[in-house]
Amino acid sequence: MTAERLARFRATLDRRQPDLRVLLDGVHKPHNVSAILRTCDAVGVYQAHAVWPGDRLAVHRQTSAGAGQWVRMRTHEAVGPAVSSLQGEGLQVYAAHLSERAVDFRSVDYTRPCAVLMGAELWGVSQAGAAAADAHISIPMAGLVASLNVSVAAAVILFEAQRQRAAAGLYDTPRLDPETYHQTLFEWLHP
Amino acid sequence: MTAERLARFRATLDRRQPDLRVLLDGVHKPHNVSAILRTCDAVGVYQAHAVWPGDRLAVHRQTSAGAGQWVRMRTHEAVGPAVSSLQGEGLQVYAAHLSERAVDFRSVDYTRPCAVLMGAELWGVSQAGAAAADAHISIPMAGLVASLNVSVAAAVILFEAQRQRAAAGLYDTPRLDPETYHQTLFEWLHP
Ligand SMILES: C[S@@+](CC[C@H](N)C(=O)[O-])C[C@H]1O[C@@H](n2cnc3c(N)ncnc32)[C@H](O)[C@@H]1O
Ligand SMILES: C[S@@+](CC[C@H](N)C(=O)[O-])C[C@H]1O[C@@H](n2cnc3c(N)ncnc32)[C@H](O)[C@@H]1O
Repeated sequence: MTAERLARFRATLDRRQPDLRVLLDGVHKPHNVSAILRTCDAVGVYQAHAVWPGDRLAVHRQTSAGAGQWVRMRTHEAVGPAVSSLQGEGLQVYAAHLSERAVDFRSVDYTRPCAVLMGAELWGVSQAGAAAADAHISIPMAGLVASLNVSVAAAVILFEAQRQRAAAGLYDTPRLDPETYHQTLFEWLHP
Repeated sequence: MTAERLARFRATLDRRQPDLRVLLDGVHKPHNVSAILRTCDAVGVYQAHAVWPGDRLAVHRQTSAGAGQWVRMRTHEAVGPAVSSLQGEGLQVYAAHLSERAVDFRSVDYTRPCAVLMGAELWGVSQAGAAAADAHISIPMAGLVASLNVSVAAAVILFEAQRQRAAAGLYDTPRLDPETYHQTLFEWLHP
């Protein structure tokens, strides 16, 4: 049992992608946050980020339906500093945003270090988030409804990232630095 | 205003795909059904199917968040007859189901007439549904959580179908038969 758990944890950490992130810009419905974290876990996102007031984290922890414990979550007070901090780490920030500037989501390179910025259910990506992002990406819509559910949009983009990264061999050898790897393994084994 | 609406309706009907369907096998949470119908509308699904007891349709109509009125929904009492009826129309039925028989979801051909069968939130695809399907397809999971949210899984598969169909030119000329096209246009203009 413990050996099996250890093997599963190692197999997961072997595929975690420290340079593929998600930044949630005011996404607040628990079922959406939960679905997004499940998707993050599935495509190997090691760390997600969220902009929300301090007291919302409690909600997230209760409702992440199992995935919350496997995807590290960092919260930020405002989107501007959050985007700057990701850019400071060398990541491109792609805002999922149906703006005039938007390019097709399949045309950008997700094998380079990047973060996908998702907007809130009602008002979408904030003005500050849209302004700070390096690019805007959109998923084509062939129907009458203007936008997709946010957890659906995040998944469509993240599985395109997964496809590109798998093709580039980025899941074939461990990509976390050894210290983070072992620290996380320790935390998962001793929660 | 009316001319603009007419143009939008026509542009949508020009891209509707009568031979790309979704069959929901006991999916019952309104927010999931709603998110799936939004995705159906976005990728041009003309008709969706659902297996559920007669009295559930009311829930669906209230909660489809706008997309329900643009995607025709047919309900079925049981999954076996629903699958047979789709197969009788010449469609392949691909069950999204993490079984031993499952092949990677990107390896199947969505340009041929087909329906994607999605399982319920808790128990997944029913035994009868899994047995009746022509193939099982799975989305790769690189993490610790066993499955994706059902509306997320449906979207990842449907946007792969959209990608294949766009590459094959299936959105370039109208694919609905003229009678269905005009009948639907009439219904949308005079709800
Ligand atoms: C329900 S949408 C927000 C809609 C909002 N009314 C707007 O105009 O932006 C929630 C988020 O999902 C993402 N999203 C939804 N549909 C999308 C699409 N077709 N392309 C890119 N992102 C999308 C965006 O991040 C968006 O901010
Ligand atoms: C939450 S899952 C059901 C989980 C259920 N415990 C089971 O074992 O099947 C709901 C539905 O989403 C779809 N789904 C979720 N993750 C999937 C994946 N990785 N591949 C294919 N389909 C998936 C399937 O149709 C599944 O029946």
